[in-house]
Amino acid sequence: MFEQLGLIGCGLMGGSFALALKRAGLVKRIVGYSKSPSTTERARQMGVIDVEAPSALLAVSGADIVLLAVPVSATEASFKAIRHLLTPNTLVMDVGSTKRDVVDAARRVLRDHVGCFVPAHPITGKEVSGVEHADVNLYAGKQVILTPIERTFTVQLQKAVDVWTALGCHVVKMSPQSHDAAYAAVSHLPHLIAFAMINGIAGQDHGKEYMSLAGPGFRDFTRIAASDPKMWRDILVANREELLDQSRIFQKTLQSLENLITSGDGDALESLIEQASETRANWRIASQKSHK
Amino acid sequence: MFEQLGLIGCGLMGGSFALALKRAGLVKRIVGYSKSPSTTERARQMGVIDVEAPSALLAVSGADIVLLAVPVSATEASFKAIRHLLTPNTLVMDVGSTKRDVVDAARRVLRDHVGCFVPAHPITGKEVSGVEHADVNLYAGKQVILTPIERTFTVQLQKAVDVWTALGCHVVKMSPQSHDAAYAAVSHLPHLIAFAMINGIAGQDHGKEYMSLAGPGFRDFTRIAASDPKMWRDILVANREELLDQSRIFQKTLQSLENLITSGDGDALESLIEQASETRANWRIASQKSHK
Repeated sequence: MFEQLGLIGCGLMGGSFALALKRAGLVKRIVGYSKSPSTTERARQMGVIDVEAPSALLAVSGADIVLLAVPVSATEASFKAIRHLLTPNTLVMDVGSTKRDVVDAARRVLRDHVGCFVPAHPITGKEVSGVEHADVNLYAGKQVILTPIERTFTVQLQKAVDVWTALGCHVVKMSPQSHDAAYAAVSHLPHLIAFAMINGIAGQDHGKEYMSLAGPGFRDFTRIAASDPKMWRDILVANREELLDQSRIFQKTLQSLENLITSGDGDALESLIEQASETRANWRIASQKSHK
Repeated sequence: MFEQLGLIGCGLMGGSFALALKRAGLVKRIVGYSKSPSTTERARQMGVIDVEAPSALLAVSGADIVLLAVPVSATEASFKAIRHLLTPNTLVMDVGSTKRDVVDAARRVLRDHVGCFVPAHPITGKEVSGVEHADVNLYAGKQVILTPIERTFTVQLQKAVDVWTALGCHVVKMSPQSHDAAYAAVSHLPHLIAFAMINGIAGQDHGKEYMSLAGPGFRDFTRIAASDPKMWRDILVANREELLDQSRIFQKTLQSLENLITSGDGDALESLIEQASETRANWRIASQKSHK
């Protein structure tokens, strides 16, 4: 049981965490701060936070658990704003979609206090953002990746595991490097492709007409293209090396398929599609798999 | 009201059409044929068809409405198999995802009877195939594209519009060329990309592990990769020119995004993502839009 959650960033991710932590009975008081005062006010009016803080530092004052829920490029500035009030007993976590850059920022800024920071990436989200979409069930049944480093305090790591588990999450631990390589493949590249797909169609003379004809396949394929621009700008830049590596692999695979289409080699083409189709048909999202 | 539906292909699309036509009270008798006798038998046992035909020709014998629901590459052979029993009063339709190749086959094979063929493409489907997934509601609320040619009989075109409308569909008419250009962009390319994405990840050393970490974004983005290999082999080859044109546009757009990522130009990158995000957020699937 925590005394106080200091919430830096009262948007979709932060707001949902606050609601879930409160419902689980894990915290007495939530003090929130957002860059935009109207967001913080909204969060308090909605009951997502109990108290509005006028600065990140004041949100952390008295907190024994801190969540940074800001775009990854704002992580370093947030660490700087709060470091003076961190103690070895504070559990600090983030929810960023990239982990190497966040860990680097933590090392640079937190220094001796880096051990109380447990980097976290919950595999959830919505294609809408903002505290008005905060959802007490956003994390339930989802995976959360923790990427501790060698200097992470074991006590804080264990607390982090316990908190996410209490919220109904399936916790997976891995290195920041492995995390960024994996999510470049299964999340960052799909987003980049979805953005490119939409802009590629919208930029054509008949683009609007084409899109008016699109069906359920297009709807699901492009859903993630509606994601938050600032957040995704940061992710794509922060993880650019792994992302561009994955994009090269994808483009090579695309090229092999196109070569078979051009040459009209139906058998070989069918066999590659069959591989993809079987692989995808046998895949299950981890949260569903682990449901009892 | 039709006397007899001659159903060539008793799979997901054909079986669902039979169920919907029967429920709407639009047909007295359904005679079905599938290449595999066990499929035809299954369809009869499930009540999807009333009578099993041992050949496509016999399914058409006595039919005043015929639906070809076969992979597009089998369209020409199906036309050949049935042409001797077609009369100017028979309404013949298909459900193929490409239309120029189907229309070309119809011209070549049906000749003087080409007027009774109304090319149709219902914008629906599932990532599973087979008569066991036939669904009486598969077409309800969906778009159906009709691509009549200059020699299509107006009476058959009107009958086709009436049938699909009675099944709850929103009917759109366009040329086979416009159809193929539009669906290359909003359906065929997304499928090709989804196949490439899955094979690209699965072919990597840590591919399985990466996929086990994937979340809801990946799930929706790759759903169409589980589609039927034979069907999609045919579509991709049949519409290869439009498809490869669309792929070039996509790859160019992808390259512009990657250039901004490489150069770290966050503002320009954010602005392109914002374009995509707004376009996608404002898009609505036609069937939902037209719901009263």
